[in-house]
Amino acid sequence: MRSITEEKFERLLGLMQKEQVDVLIVSDTEMTRDVNLQYLSGHPMDGNLVITSSGETALFPWDLALAKAESEVDEIIDSANYNHNTSLAFKAYVEEHIKKTNKTVGVFSYFPFSSVVRIEELIPGLKFHREPIKFSRFVEDLRATKSMREIELLRKAAQIGTDTIQDIKKFLLNATDETEKDLDFHVLNKMSKRGAEDLAFPTLVGNGNRAHMLHCHPSASNEKLAAPGLGVIDFGAKYKGYHSDITVPFSFGELSPDQLKMHELTFKAHDAAIEMLEVGVPLWKVHQTAQDILTNGGFPMPHSLGHGLGLTVHDSPFLSRKPTDEFSLKYWKETTLEDGMVFTIEPGVYRLGLGGHRLENDVAVVNGKIEILTKSEFVQV
Amino acid sequence: MRSITEEKFERLLGLMQKEQVDVLIVSDTEMTRDVNLQYLSGHPMDGNLVITSSGETALFPWDLALAKAESEVDEIIDSANYNHNTSLAFKAYVEEHIKKTNKTVGVFSYFPFSSVVRIEELIPGLKFHREPIKFSRFVEDLRATKSMREIELLRKAAQIGTDTIQDIKKFLLNATDETEKDLDFHVLNKMSKRGAEDLAFPTLVGNGNRAHMLHCHPSASNEKLAAPGLGVIDFGAKYKGYHSDITVPFSFGELSPDQLKMHELTFKAHDAAIEMLEVGVPLWKVHQTAQDILTNGGFPMPHSLGHGLGLTVHDSPFLSRKPTDEFSLKYWKETTLEDGMVFTIEPGVYRLGLGGHRLENDVAVVNGKIEILTKSEFVQV
Repeated sequence: MRSITEEKFERLLGLMQKEQVDVLIVSDTEMTRDVNLQYLSGHPMDGNLVITSSGETALFPWDLALAKAESEVDEIIDSANYNHNTSLAFKAYVEEHIKKTNKTVGVFSYFPFSSVVRIEELIPGLKFHREPIKFSRFVEDLRATKSMREIELLRKAAQIGTDTIQDIKKFLLNATDETEKDLDFHVLNKMSKRGAEDLAFPTLVGNGNRAHMLHCHPSASNEKLAAPGLGVIDFGAKYKGYHSDITVPFSFGELSPDQLKMHELTFKAHDAAIEMLEVGVPLWKVHQTAQDILTNGGFPMPHSLGHGLGLTVHDSPFLSRKPTDEFSLKYWKETTLEDGMVFTIEPGVYRLGLGGHRLENDVAVVNGKIEILTKSEFVQV
Repeated sequence: MRSITEEKFERLLGLMQKEQVDVLIVSDTEMTRDVNLQYLSGHPMDGNLVITSSGETALFPWDLALAKAESEVDEIIDSANYNHNTSLAFKAYVEEHIKKTNKTVGVFSYFPFSSVVRIEELIPGLKFHREPIKFSRFVEDLRATKSMREIELLRKAAQIGTDTIQDIKKFLLNATDETEKDLDFHVLNKMSKRGAEDLAFPTLVGNGNRAHMLHCHPSASNEKLAAPGLGVIDFGAKYKGYHSDITVPFSFGELSPDQLKMHELTFKAHDAAIEMLEVGVPLWKVHQTAQDILTNGGFPMPHSLGHGLGLTVHDSPFLSRKPTDEFSLKYWKETTLEDGMVFTIEPGVYRLGLGGHRLENDVAVVNGKIEILTKSEFVQV
């Protein structure tokens, strides 16, 4: 079943008509992934979707059985009937459905240049619309607000994560010689058994020696967890294509006054951000409120406060600063909180010698109400 | 350090000159991965490499520190000096290095169409060469034969895998209630501790009920390993970008006469294929020899005999059938075994009710000699 609602699908057709695009291709392959395939067709991966400007949809899947089970399209086309050549199958479809001589095809940003060249050669009179970014941004905006079905799936992904926080807590409280990698495997194992189809992203485990680095490299090492200082574990579950994203801060041993301050500032910034969430609030203001608390406390945050969650782990909207330079402001647009948005709140502070401290929870706006989907906490050992 | 040799790099410049391409862009990003970045620059991921037709190289990395540590290029360019906009940094580079009015840029197949459009708009007089596939195929062919340094890395990846076969054997011999997923995690854990930077691909574990499916979905389930019939575990290690790929066949309980036949045919096909390997042999003949043994035994193999290993787990060359239809033959080219090739030999047979049986080892041709890099075996419980 496709995730996009009828109303949003009509808006996409409206853009096609406005841009005079006759056919839109949505392509997801091993080499170039695009979750818009799942969003617009329900088919989870590996295939091409074609949408005509009058709203007809056809799927050219790699796995026919999967397409029959999961997709919601007018037609499923077996490329075996075209010598297993998707381009030939596409040519036949276009010639049957678009009777004009000059045809325009729209694609999304990451559509491969080699396919553009091949298809333009194959189909005389066909040209590619030269603003793929416009289509990508438009659908990203559509995806920024979720339907009730999508929110259900995001709640489930969040629940798997929240349940796993308790495993992490137990693991940390009993850690002696266990390493970051051991916790990494433990989390993978627990989430998998709870029904996660995959990790949302490689779990990041940084002990007190490593957590001052934003993106610990490697994401989990053979160092012992039980190092003094502030550490973090940042993890999430993928459930039927939808993602959660949680950070649990932890510490081993007594906190120094500076470390205690890092902890208090982070929780204060987190709570202040949650407190001001309501439909209509500009998202940059939520970021700025958290940032001001941390900066005024002497620990400025080196990243944005949060990001959307959905079919990717970095969907729209983004909770980040309002740009100050003229060049960036020209392309910037204020986003306000809307019903159906699902996103992270994740203030964090980092300092070499002290460690890193970040509290991250997932939040949804459902029928105008703020719903905190996850329950992260500070684990002090 | 880059993997490509000087001699091969000169051949790539030769292609650029022949195709009148002034600049080649090699792009690897989160959305469109391309191992050619690592092959041609040494930089493992996330960045753009530019090569001029006179052989100058410049890297535009996401992570400057990583570029300084790993890359082998004439120049590392910090896009922070260009407002963090890689396109602007590229424009400045091209204007400084290519003094012609009309400039042609070459790219590989999966280069995103949106970048083509953006760069053509940004740089007047610049056009993209319209045969990205030609460049992709050319470098794939260069990558099909490995340098001694690459063979060293592939040997190491293979050794991690071979050592892990003994863990798998022990795990299977002691399995009672353990599931496919448990073995999956065990292998991940063991390989990680042996220095694998990652799995070569998601480990595939199919017990006797599931192994008749070529690509078990999910790749490892909560079913118990100890089901009667023929099962397989297909796994590999990634080491400094290079991959191994091994399949260990196993069984629980007595084999029926048909299952015994599947086992004997597979091992016979494997040994016959290895036996005929020597520099100059056409690879389709090696495939055909194995296929004939299996087909004549009543169990035709539904896939190719093997594939190259390198920076991807499916490099050139491919050991597969010679096409029989005219259309396919037109594009087909006979590949013979060459010094430096590294590839899998993996005959397999499958039948619902009996299970699946596949023996897979990795092979290298080093100074004209055949070297078997892995030691898979049949684990009978």
